[in-house]
This record gives sequence, structure tokens and C-alpha cells, in this order.
Amino acid sequence: MKSKFDIEILDTTLRDGAQGEGIVFSVQDKLDIAQALDELGVAWIEAGNPGSNPKDLEFFRLAPSLKLKNAKLCAFGSTRKKGVNPSADSQLRSLLGAETETVVIFGKSWDLHVKEILRVDLQENLSMIAETIAYMKAEGRRVFYDAEHFFDGLADNHDYALATIKTAADAGADLIVLCDTNGGAFPGAVAAGVKDVKKLVPGFPLGIHAHNDSGLAIANTICALQAGCVHAQGTLVGFGERCGNTALAALIPNLEIKMKLSCLPEGNLPRISELTRRVAEIANVSISDDMPYVGSHAFSHKAGMHADGILKARRSFEHIDPAAVGNERNFLVSEIGGRSAIAERAKIIESTITKEHPVTVALSEKLKSLEAEGWAFEGADASFELLVRRELGRYKPLFRIAAYRVMSEHPTGETLACSHAWVKVLVEDKCEIAAAEGEGPVNALDGALRRALMRFYPMLSKVRLEDYKVRVIDGKEATAARVRVLIQSTDGKRSWNTVGVSADIIDASRAALVDSIEYKLIADLELKENS
Amino acid sequence: MKSKFDIEILDTTLRDGAQGEGIVFSVQDKLDIAQALDELGVAWIEAGNPGSNPKDLEFFRLAPSLKLKNAKLCAFGSTRKKGVNPSADSQLRSLLGAETETVVIFGKSWDLHVKEILRVDLQENLSMIAETIAYMKAEGRRVFYDAEHFFDGLADNHDYALATIKTAADAGADLIVLCDTNGGAFPGAVAAGVKDVKKLVPGFPLGIHAHNDSGLAIANTICALQAGCVHAQGTLVGFGERCGNTALAALIPNLEIKMKLSCLPEGNLPRISELTRRVAEIANVSISDDMPYVGSHAFSHKAGMHADGILKARRSFEHIDPAAVGNERNFLVSEIGGRSAIAERAKIIESTITKEHPVTVALSEKLKSLEAEGWAFEGADASFELLVRRELGRYKPLFRIAAYRVMSEHPTGETLACSHAWVKVLVEDKCEIAAAEGEGPVNALDGALRRALMRFYPMLSKVRLEDYKVRVIDGKEATAARVRVLIQSTDGKRSWNTVGVSADIIDASRAALVDSIEYKLIADLELKENS
Repeated sequence: MKSKFDIEILDTTLRDGAQGEGIVFSVQDKLDIAQALDELGVAWIEAGNPGSNPKDLEFFRLAPSLKLKNAKLCAFGSTRKKGVNPSADSQLRSLLGAETETVVIFGKSWDLHVKEILRVDLQENLSMIAETIAYMKAEGRRVFYDAEHFFDGLADNHDYALATIKTAADAGADLIVLCDTNGGAFPGAVAAGVKDVKKLVPGFPLGIHAHNDSGLAIANTICALQAGCVHAQGTLVGFGERCGNTALAALIPNLEIKMKLSCLPEGNLPRISELTRRVAEIANVSISDDMPYVGSHAFSHKAGMHADGILKARRSFEHIDPAAVGNERNFLVSEIGGRSAIAERAKIIESTITKEHPVTVALSEKLKSLEAEGWAFEGADASFELLVRRELGRYKPLFRIAAYRVMSEHPTGETLACSHAWVKVLVEDKCEIAAAEGEGPVNALDGALRRALMRFYPMLSKVRLEDYKVRVIDGKEATAARVRVLIQSTDGKRSWNTVGVSADIIDASRAALVDSIEYKLIADLELKENS
Repeated sequence: MKSKFDIEILDTTLRDGAQGEGIVFSVQDKLDIAQALDELGVAWIEAGNPGSNPKDLEFFRLAPSLKLKNAKLCAFGSTRKKGVNPSADSQLRSLLGAETETVVIFGKSWDLHVKEILRVDLQENLSMIAETIAYMKAEGRRVFYDAEHFFDGLADNHDYALATIKTAADAGADLIVLCDTNGGAFPGAVAAGVKDVKKLVPGFPLGIHAHNDSGLAIANTICALQAGCVHAQGTLVGFGERCGNTALAALIPNLEIKMKLSCLPEGNLPRISELTRRVAEIANVSISDDMPYVGSHAFSHKAGMHADGILKARRSFEHIDPAAVGNERNFLVSEIGGRSAIAERAKIIESTITKEHPVTVALSEKLKSLEAEGWAFEGADASFELLVRRELGRYKPLFRIAAYRVMSEHPTGETLACSHAWVKVLVEDKCEIAAAEGEGPVNALDGALRRALMRFYPMLSKVRLEDYKVRVIDGKEATAARVRVLIQSTDGKRSWNTVGVSADIIDASRAALVDSIEYKLIADLELKENS
């Protein structure tokens, strides 16, 4: 198993990350996150625990459609139940049902857990480890063995913790991962533990899995790698039980930039800021502004002396070049790629646009002011394209909403809660009014708007909404806060994303719906002209 | 200067913390924060930079009224300007004007900064350090010398960095603080740097000041203390330039609990969670839920196996007892949680409930079916308590919404987009109707509902919404998908969270609003009965 990387990264956002408070993934969320992690280029994605969560099997069934380029999926499960043959253990059968080449099996290293939690004798735990690994190997799987609570076990019963490791190695595990499951270990103890294991099983590939309960997850991971581990686990944003797992978005730049250890395909590191934000968006949480490397404040300079220093010598107050991780000095959110990224995307509309083009400069200013109002175009390519068209003067409105009214009432004559809407649209000098009912006010508005427009643009009959997300931008003002709505639409052939922002969720949705329909109409009309 | 602590803590929330993006303190905020830090019992409070921020002098003028019991204030400033006599340097005169016993003087250790930022020759920088310290000593001040960028300086020009330290020691500084100003250092380099300085000035008291740009501030601080430093700087919540300073709320428990190093008056550690939140509140920011030791998720257990383990042996999934830092264990009720967690939470209402109690079994079934519909109670304690009450037969509705109607329309006579609502409520046999306008339909509904109920329950006048979150549960059905609304409410004394789910965002919000109001009313009525 010679790796092309110095350190192989395993991301467990979809498994340990899903155990974080407030994190709930749909199957589609999981597919989208796997896609983002693959774009970043981690070696492994631990994608679920099919034995404890049957919904995860659905993910593994759909996963082959992702066509991952860099990452390999693994399914996660535990050692067999006590006194049961592995082949008769339903949890292990679910694990095999995920049909991944690689499985991650966790077992107990801490005698406290064996005696008081599993309530089996110490010898039986060793058999559970050995037989489970041997069974998975016999079924043709590559096996990563997670030694749960390894460092706590080592502190309490040194010999037994090491015996569990020796058992896993002898049973044929391909990799042994030393876990600080409770997150309480200190760097010195982690380094010493790794060295003990290296003495026990010389040359055996080892990994590290840390939690941040003492604020030391990144340091512990680095110390373990310095002591000889070749595999590091974590979650990109840092999601996980309690205080979270090692945040890979902070670990990976430390490894690649500071320690010169490769762990991503060459050239991928500058995408880490964008992809970390994308994964957080999918999980519907914000990354901390002060997150190392990728946070929006990570390269913000406030004190006058610091700003002045930066202008004289970048190194004076920046430990790395922000571009190396795709972040920016000061606070530019979707401008994380800077003007080059804007120009790159504007080229889709007009191929002659460069980084220095006046339209790029104007767009950069426009983005800054829109972002200050809560807009974000990272997940809304179609809205961004419309913005480029307006800036280029290549935009004329194809319709206008003259008026709309949306009502939600309870009770109504027919159902418990019902929403309905009417919309009046203008297309050139013609006018049309239509009404629709819906499940919720936005659904009703969407229905009425498309009915009214279909008289003029019958191609809209094929458009439907695939995804709808609402994000409260500043929760602190509660229900009067601004909301950002992201919509994904499809015409059956392709998908596009649009965004709307307002204090009023109806109005934010209206803006995203209008962008979606305009984008579709412009694309179809241009296609007609060019054919 | 024999200390009563093993490690003296200096909190710089009011100085370096104020340089964090988004942090703005009024003089009163600063006084309140100094009070909180003194209650915690840190040895030193670095309270401002009177030379660069004249407003800080006002703080120092008012500070004696605080009557601090534990902490001593220091004022912060830089070495003298080039070619100026210290007694003629206005910045140093402002520093003296703060009238603190102790001053912190920062100077340059990194030749890059001397040459390119200060633009003075290397010898003049040494004179600036020596003369400034000597002047402050002659004025009767205790002097802490902050060696800015010490570790970067050591890496670039080892001998010069050490020469600045020797100069400060010889000039009579009482303490020398080694600073990783850019936050890019690694623990190994920090430990080696401290050892170099110990060799240079044996027995001289040393301190450490770290930043979190590599996610290593806490680890670097610990390594420096292990290498011989006796003084640690940071900010309680972690505020500071860019990614922030060492978060003392995570560092102090590591020192006191894990390393058995005293740094607070005995018995004060359990106040750290409360005081960290208080300081964050004063700064008008929320602490991260996943903050080590003090975050609201720091002792949350979600996976069923974890919750079950905790009930068998607390140590099995907790690295420390949460009570040691004044935090609380929290079992998240969720599909991956299990009956132990449900019983633990239901005990708040009825202490006799066990894992096997029929109410626990019924609640577990109820939760499963509600979660299948998209409900999630892990972030909604108050809604869960109402569920328990209903299952126990300890619930009677205090009001009923007979009807509501919410309308959003565009355009209206007055504004671009406007929402308004009316609500009719029944309380026993009495009826009330009220209307309200709002920014968005939910804001309008909330206003109308509380207006209608206030006639019966005047205590609702103190309730306001703190946070509002919307989550689309299965985006694939787009705007007809179900939405989950989470609301955080407060009455100024405490906060509670409720949840609502529906295909209609208005109806989901209505459910969460009704739970929030019922929870408040039940809590107040029970309080009255018991008093």
C-alpha cells in the first residue's frame, strides 16, 4: 500500500462529523460533501456507519454515481458482538453491504471500556478484535483498525492497550489508527504512545485520530505524525462529538506549508478555503471567522501598526501567503480567488475578459457591496452570470413582476394550513395574472409565477426546483434578521443555482426564483440564436 | 516577586482582544470585563494602550473605582521613538499617565521589523529597548518586556533576537515575555526558543504570548511553560488579531486540571464557564459551541453508544468532570441517542423516570416517528420538555390559536415589500384578536401572536427572540420540502430553544413560537405555585 502522499488524510465528516451537535445530513447532503472532499483530494472518506444507521446504506448505494477522482470511500463499524460468530453478526453484514473496498473497524483498547461498558472479559475483547478483522480480510476487504481510547487505555493499563494493538496487527489489519476518543490527551503523551506502538509493531503503518476537548487536536496530530504516523483523521470543518475532531482545514496547511509533507494532489491546497466553506454551507453552519488559515478573519489586520507593517513587508504580520490556501488579506468572502477568479468565471460569458478588465474591477466592487448586505455567490453560479451580463450590458429583462400577494392562513376550509399566491407579470406590453396554491408561501409563489409566465415561455413547463435552502444571516435579530435563499433548478438536462437576500423570506425567494427563470430563458434564447 | 501561583496569567482581552475584528469596547464594557476577569482571579489585566488610544486613559482614570480583589492592571506601550529621549516621548508619557504600578513595553526582536518596519539600525533598536525600560524603572514602574515576533526573529537572525532579550534583562525588566506575534510557530520551535533564552539569562522570569494562526496557540503556550516559562498571556474568550490569542478559557483548565499548575485562587475554576460567557456577552459575540471546556457542546453526547457509556462510567467519554469548569453534561435526544439519554433529560420534569420507565419507552417511539417527519429535538430543550409533560399527562394548553392569516405583498403603498399578520387566540372562554406588521411573514406573525396574548399573560412583554434558524429538511422536493424552524427565546434571565416542522415555513414557525410561549408560561406559573 505505497502511498503517493507523505501523509494520507481520512476525512470523517460524514461519520464522526455527523455525531456533532446540530449536524444533520440528508443523503443528498452526504453526496454533495463527498464530492467536495474528492475535489479537495483527501485520500479517504469515512462515509457512514451502516450498522448503526440504516439510512447510511442508501448513501453507499448511490455513491458510485459520484465517480470520485481522488478519494476512496470507507464504511465504519465496530468489532463483532460478544459470543457471536462474525458471519452471523448483523452489524458486520450491514458493513459488508456498503460494498466498499475498505472498512474501518473500531475496537476497545481501554480496559475500563471492556469491563464497564462492553461488560466482557479482557480475553474476549481480544478475540472480538482478532475475529472481526480476520473475517473482513477473508471477505476481501482492506481493514483500517481504529483503536478507540488508545491513549486513555495506555495510561490506565499499558500492557493491555498494547495487547489490543498486537492482536489487530496479527489478525491482518492494514493500518492501525491510534485514537484519542475523549480528546483529553496531551502532545507529550501522544508522542510517547506512538513510540511505544512503533516498538511493538515495527514498520506497521499507523494513523492518528484526535479530538479537540483540550484545544490540542491539531498539536496532538502533528506530534503523532512527527513520531511516525503516516495517516491522519479529522473532519474538514472540525465537526464532531463535543468539541469536534481535528479540523483538517487547519491541519492540512500546517502539514503542506509548514512541514513540507504532501497530503493533497499537487495544486489543490488553494481550493481549501472555498471547499471548507462549501461543506459548512451544506451542513448549514458558518465556519468560525477566526478559524486558522480558512476563516474570514484569518488574514484581517486591524491595528494600524499591523496594516502599515503589511504594506511594508507582507511577512511582517502574516505567517503564510493567504493565496496559498485560497484565502485573502482582509475580509473578502466570495472573492477568495480574488479578481483572477472573477475573471475566470466571467470568461464564460465573454472570453476576452481578463483580471485587469474594467468589468472585472467593477464586478469586484459590486461583489464587495453585495456581500456586505449578506449576498453570497459561491453557491449561485447562475445569479453570478446574470450579474456579469448586467455589468457587460448584455442583459435585458425578459419579464417583470408587476405585483404579487402571498397569503398563509389557518384554518382554511380544506386543509390545516394552506398558502396561496397570485402574481401579475408583464412581458413587453402584455400582461398576465395567475394564481396557485402551495405547501407553504414560497411554493405557492413559485407556482403562480411560473403559470403566469408559461403563456409567453412554454419551455418553463420543464423547469422544476430541485433544492431550496434558507440561511439566516444574522440570527441575533431573530425573526427580523436577513435571510439568504439558495435555489437549485433543473430542466431535466442541467442544473443551475441562484440566490436571493432580503429581510423578508418571501422577497428573498422571489429574487432567487426570478434569477432562476431568467437564467433558463437567456440560455434557451441564446441557444436558438446560435443554432 | 514571589508569586502565589505556579503560573501567573495575564489577560489581554482589553488590549490585544480589542484588536480582534468586530470587537469594539466602550469604557463601561472595559470596566465590566475587568470586573469579570478579577472575579475569575487572573493575576494581571493588560487593560489598554493609552499612547495609541487616548480613550484608554479614561478607563485607567475610572479603574480605581472597581476595587479589584485579585488582578492588577497594567498599561501597554512600545519602546521610545527613534532618536528621542524617553522623557520627551509623548507615547511614554501617556503610558505613565495611566498610573499603573506595572507597564508592559513591547519592542522588536525580529531584524526584519527593525530594518523594514521601524527603519532604524539594529543598534538603535537595542538602545530604544534599554533606554525605555531604564526610564520606566526610574519612574518606579514594574516592567514586563514583550519581545514581539521573538520566534520569527530567532529563526531569521538568531543572535540578534537573543541580543534584544539580553538588552531588556540588563536594562532591568522584571519579566520578559516571548511573543509569537504572527501565530505561525510550532511547539518544537517554541520549546527550543525558550531553552535558548533560559541559557542566555538563567533564572530570569519568562512569559509566553501566543496567537492561534496555526491552531497551535494552546499547545505552544503549554510547551513554553513546560520549557520553563512562569507567565502566560492570552484572552479569556480567545479574542485577538486575525485568528485570535491563546484562549485562556481552554488554557487555564488544562493547566489546573491536567498539569496541576495553580493559576487561579483556589475554588475559582468552576466559575470559568459562566465568566467566559459573560465576557463574550459584553463583547456582543457568542462563544463557539464547540469551545473546549466552556462551550455549550463541550460535554454533549449524541451517539447512543456514548450516552450509554457515560451512564455506566462518566470517565468513559468525558476527559474531565464538567462541574470542575462549571459546565454541564448534555444528552442530545436524537435517533442516534437512545433511551438512556431520553431518561436522563426527562428526569428534569419527573425525577423517578428511568431508562425502562414506560414514559421513556413511549417517548422513544414518539421521537422516532417525529424524527422521521423531520423534527429534531437536540437543539430544542424546551420543546422536548413539553413533549415529556404531554406524555406524563402534566400538560394543559394555556391558549389556543383559533385562526391566523399572514400576508406578504409587493408592491404595497408604503414599502417595497411588506408583511402583516392577524391572529385570533382563545384563553379559556375569552377571545382576543391582534394584528402586526413585520419584516417578513414570521416576524409579523410573532408580533401579532404576542400582542394578542399579552392581555392574558403580561409577563410575555419581557420575552424576545434571540435567534431564528431555518433548515430545509429534504431539499429535493424544493419549495414544497419540509422546513424545520429553531427559535431561541429569552426573558432576560434565561434562554430556551424550541422547534417546529411543517411543509409551510409559516406553520413551522407558528409551532416553534407556540412552544416557546407555552414553555415560558408554564415555567412562570410553576415558580408562582412553588413560592
